[in-house]
Amino acid sequence: MSSPRRVILREVGPRDGLQAEAPVAVDVRVALVEGLLAAGVRHVEVASFVSPKAVPAMAGAAEVVAAVGRPAGVVRTALVPNRRGAELALDAGVDELTVTVSASETYSQKNVHMSTEESLAATASVCALASASGVPVDAVLSFAFGSPYEGDLPPEEVATFAARLVDGGATTITLADTTGMATPRRIDEALEALTAGDAGDVLVFGGGPIGLHLHETRGTGLLNLYAGFQRGVARFDTSVGGLGGSPFAAGAGGNVATEDAVALLDDLGVETGIDLDRLLIVSADLERAIGRPVPSRVAHAGPRTRRAEG
Amino acid sequence: MSSPRRVILREVGPRDGLQAEAPVAVDVRVALVEGLLAAGVRHVEVASFVSPKAVPAMAGAAEVVAAVGRPAGVVRTALVPNRRGAELALDAGVDELTVTVSASETYSQKNVHMSTEESLAATASVCALASASGVPVDAVLSFAFGSPYEGDLPPEEVATFAARLVDGGATTITLADTTGMATPRRIDEALEALTAGDAGDVLVFGGGPIGLHLHETRGTGLLNLYAGFQRGVARFDTSVGGLGGSPFAAGAGGNVATEDAVALLDDLGVETGIDLDRLLIVSADLERAIGRPVPSRVAHAGPRTRRAEG
Repeated sequence: MSSPRRVILREVGPRDGLQAEAPVAVDVRVALVEGLLAAGVRHVEVASFVSPKAVPAMAGAAEVVAAVGRPAGVVRTALVPNRRGAELALDAGVDELTVTVSASETYSQKNVHMSTEESLAATASVCALASASGVPVDAVLSFAFGSPYEGDLPPEEVATFAARLVDGGATTITLADTTGMATPRRIDEALEALTAGDAGDVLVFGGGPIGLHLHETRGTGLLNLYAGFQRGVARFDTSVGGLGGSPFAAGAGGNVATEDAVALLDDLGVETGIDLDRLLIVSADLERAIGRPVPSRVAHAGPRTRRAEG
Repeated sequence: MSSPRRVILREVGPRDGLQAEAPVAVDVRVALVEGLLAAGVRHVEVASFVSPKAVPAMAGAAEVVAAVGRPAGVVRTALVPNRRGAELALDAGVDELTVTVSASETYSQKNVHMSTEESLAATASVCALASASGVPVDAVLSFAFGSPYEGDLPPEEVATFAARLVDGGATTITLADTTGMATPRRIDEALEALTAGDAGDVLVFGGGPIGLHLHETRGTGLLNLYAGFQRGVARFDTSVGGLGGSPFAAGAGGNVATEDAVALLDDLGVETGIDLDRLLIVSADLERAIGRPVPSRVAHAGPRTRRAEG
């Protein structure tokens, strides 16, 4: 078992981070994305093409995408809830779509008003549309490590969901720990089920690198990122400042903070392309934009190299 | 490299946890210890025999020790700053002393008004006294993973400090990450320097199990506990609720929360002897005693098995 030398941190701050906040103006969201890119972020979820009535903070998604433009070497992702959202996102010209399928039947029924079966079908429909435009789709399996509704999800069911998503046209799979139920052991078991023991420098499923989307609900997000990394996961969703968490899921907490992940990976000699000092400036700007401290500890304590004053 | 099957969590909440809080009455501190013991804690730092002028929250140390009594199978530890404190603690009848030596010369001079050399000599004097009473001494090396004053501490210097502490009579050694500068890599390097590559189920130094005392300043305490555990460390200091942090060190943060550690270790099938549900009751009582929420995420989110209501 060897760990990746290079890790992709897909920045979800402009979407997952801000979606539950009081709405932030489009130009501030664009400046956030630009700050992230200047810090070295190369993969960013810029917006969500959802109903502005359902998620007011995500209004103006097309404007955000247009204003960000097409910076070289950058993957601009948008979350879409359905085929209509996918059409809008593809029209806006994003480079990747993310779709979420809930492994929790209860959550799915309650919040998306679809069964997981219907959600899988809707995802396949989005994938068909994206494929016609040559745009990849990352399918995010939420509650992949259990839900507060049904409890644990057996690893073989995670693998079944993932296989069905790939069969439905998903390019890559991301396992999401929506409410902080993942642990190093559960991550091991899920990865084992997905890869059937195949080991490599980078764990893949369906031809693409497996992603992890982790939350700090129980203070284990960064720990789980480390556990996944040790086992060969080379792609993680993180959010600048550690903002985020589903506005709809009981007991959700913020995402793993990008600065916390970069600090950890830097120290391990793993390349992320992100400059921590520049990222901390973005994080401080974000605090001003939302008007309260971000949850990230590194945002406040600074890099481990920071010296005491006086 | 195999991980321990059983881990000792030395509970430092009644000392490190409360020392920086507004003083809590002796009977409440005794009730805290009793609650912890009822939850299965078997090793607890009950008090600090320091000047009540310097640390008002630790006044009444002898009364706490007396009221706790001598429960069977329990190790009651007290922190002592010097020979006078050791005399008082030994008179009170504790089972173990902890002494702290700062690896940071600047911190030592600033806060203990001794050089590290003088501090090593003072520790040897405490060890001689304790040894005459047959009481073990755990020497805690603070800033073992660097300090905000001098920066990184080379691993070979950690090993030299540890060797000198054992030469001076310390029974066991605990490496403390006083300001959250430890990382999995730094822990690896320090353990490697201490054990010279010796591997076993449980890492030892000077004949006793190596301990880690970790803080959440940069949100890496639990992660570092996991990293240390993976490498064979079987003894950790944790604090119920995640309270704590030196009142004197720049940028200190709370200790690893005992409930967070128990939740992680339970899931890994590692025995701690501590019942998480009972511990969460103690943690809730502690919040009432200090009048504010504790930092632990698990204290609020509950065990991963907690279900959503309704």
